[in-house]
Amino acid sequence: MPGQLVLLRHGQSQWNLENRFTGWVDVDLTEQGRAEARAAGKLLAEEGLQFDVAFTSLLQRAIKTLWLALEELQQPWVDVERHWRLNERHYGALQGLDKAETSAKHGEEQVHIWRRSYDIPPPPMADDDPEHPRFDSRYAKLDARVLPATESLALTLERVLPFWHDAIAPRLKAGETVLVTAHGNSLRALVKYLDGIAEDVITGVNIPTGIPQLYRLDDQLNVIESRYLGDADAAKAAAQAVADQAKGKA
Amino acid sequence: MPGQLVLLRHGQSQWNLENRFTGWVDVDLTEQGRAEARAAGKLLAEEGLQFDVAFTSLLQRAIKTLWLALEELQQPWVDVERHWRLNERHYGALQGLDKAETSAKHGEEQVHIWRRSYDIPPPPMADDDPEHPRFDSRYAKLDARVLPATESLALTLERVLPFWHDAIAPRLKAGETVLVTAHGNSLRALVKYLDGIAEDVITGVNIPTGIPQLYRLDDQLNVIESRYLGDADAAKAAAQAVADQAKGKA
Repeated sequence: MPGQLVLLRHGQSQWNLENRFTGWVDVDLTEQGRAEARAAGKLLAEEGLQFDVAFTSLLQRAIKTLWLALEELQQPWVDVERHWRLNERHYGALQGLDKAETSAKHGEEQVHIWRRSYDIPPPPMADDDPEHPRFDSRYAKLDARVLPATESLALTLERVLPFWHDAIAPRLKAGETVLVTAHGNSLRALVKYLDGIAEDVITGVNIPTGIPQLYRLDDQLNVIESRYLGDADAAKAAAQAVADQAKGKA
Repeated sequence: MPGQLVLLRHGQSQWNLENRFTGWVDVDLTEQGRAEARAAGKLLAEEGLQFDVAFTSLLQRAIKTLWLALEELQQPWVDVERHWRLNERHYGALQGLDKAETSAKHGEEQVHIWRRSYDIPPPPMADDDPEHPRFDSRYAKLDARVLPATESLALTLERVLPFWHDAIAPRLKAGETVLVTAHGNSLRALVKYLDGIAEDVITGVNIPTGIPQLYRLDDQLNVIESRYLGDADAAKAAAQAVADQAKGKA
């Protein structure tokens, strides 16, 4: 029997709060974000889940969300694999800009297109920008040509899926219970793939922060059932908050 | 050029404070222990160390010490590998007993022998004891015959070394900078091996909690130099505190 999969989006970060495009910038959780992470751990504990392995990105808001959830769950000893392919969508030259700055620079309509189109990436970050991932030691062992300077959701999916197929799916097929703690768009990519969501629909799917989504899968990893843990209204409200924030920004 | 190695013993746990034999019992850090872990992270940061990989045990006092140190160091994205072979020495039937209980049950002299001899293990935990590691889900994938029910320091070394040779040493030979966050006796085993310390001497070597020990190694992983980071007197005082605690217990 294949295992169970839980997807968990990190809690509020400092730049979620300030409504800035974050992408690969390594912003920390806020206190509220840390509380969301602990609450997520509580929901996992109430469900009686016992994880065999957890996957997360190389960004601290996801890693710390995982730490806090595992601590609350009293399973800090679970294997954790960090991987750059689970990082947030790279927002190119938009990274660091807040709503007003982005609109002033590019116009509201254009920004809406970048946020909500499936395959139009924002302008890339300059190759010599000190914020470019190739200057970041955590990516130093990678062929620099694989590192994004901007991404659409389509490109995000393209780099997330190899990790799904090579690292995550085999663990599920072996019957393990798997936790993936990542980001709004890297999780959107997984959800699109798992639930077979159309390109023009997935960009409107909002993944709430800090609310674990539990998937039951069949032998071929087709979805039998998926649901958010805890109170259904709370999950809906959290997804709406994400949607409202996106509207506010674009 | 081979990489650098840092050994770090976890901060104070609840049972360090209560002077109980802990071994494989999964006791949490105290507030002081958490502060020690953060202080260790600060010392690593001051040294300018950038880690490629960190290894720790399956026990939360070591894992959380690592988390707090990596957070303080601002390198939460470093690869972490948890492994049972880095666990503390298994203290057999002594686990959970405090000083008075142990002396009442076994006599002070006998307890001193178990603590300070190199190769005499305490009486084993009963095979059907619910605290036996074979009933703990984190070890469920192991052949139960490899799980200890008691250990001398010699037996601890025997199960730590395969992990050193297979997992840690290759990373150092590849030039990586490696952090090992573990326990008084699993680290004592590594120190005995690295520094070539005699059996009757190593049992008197006290590894301070929360003070990183930095090793420089040559191509063959022979020790060129080792030193505690930070204030030398603080390291000495911390080691003395450990020694005093041991005396108090035995």
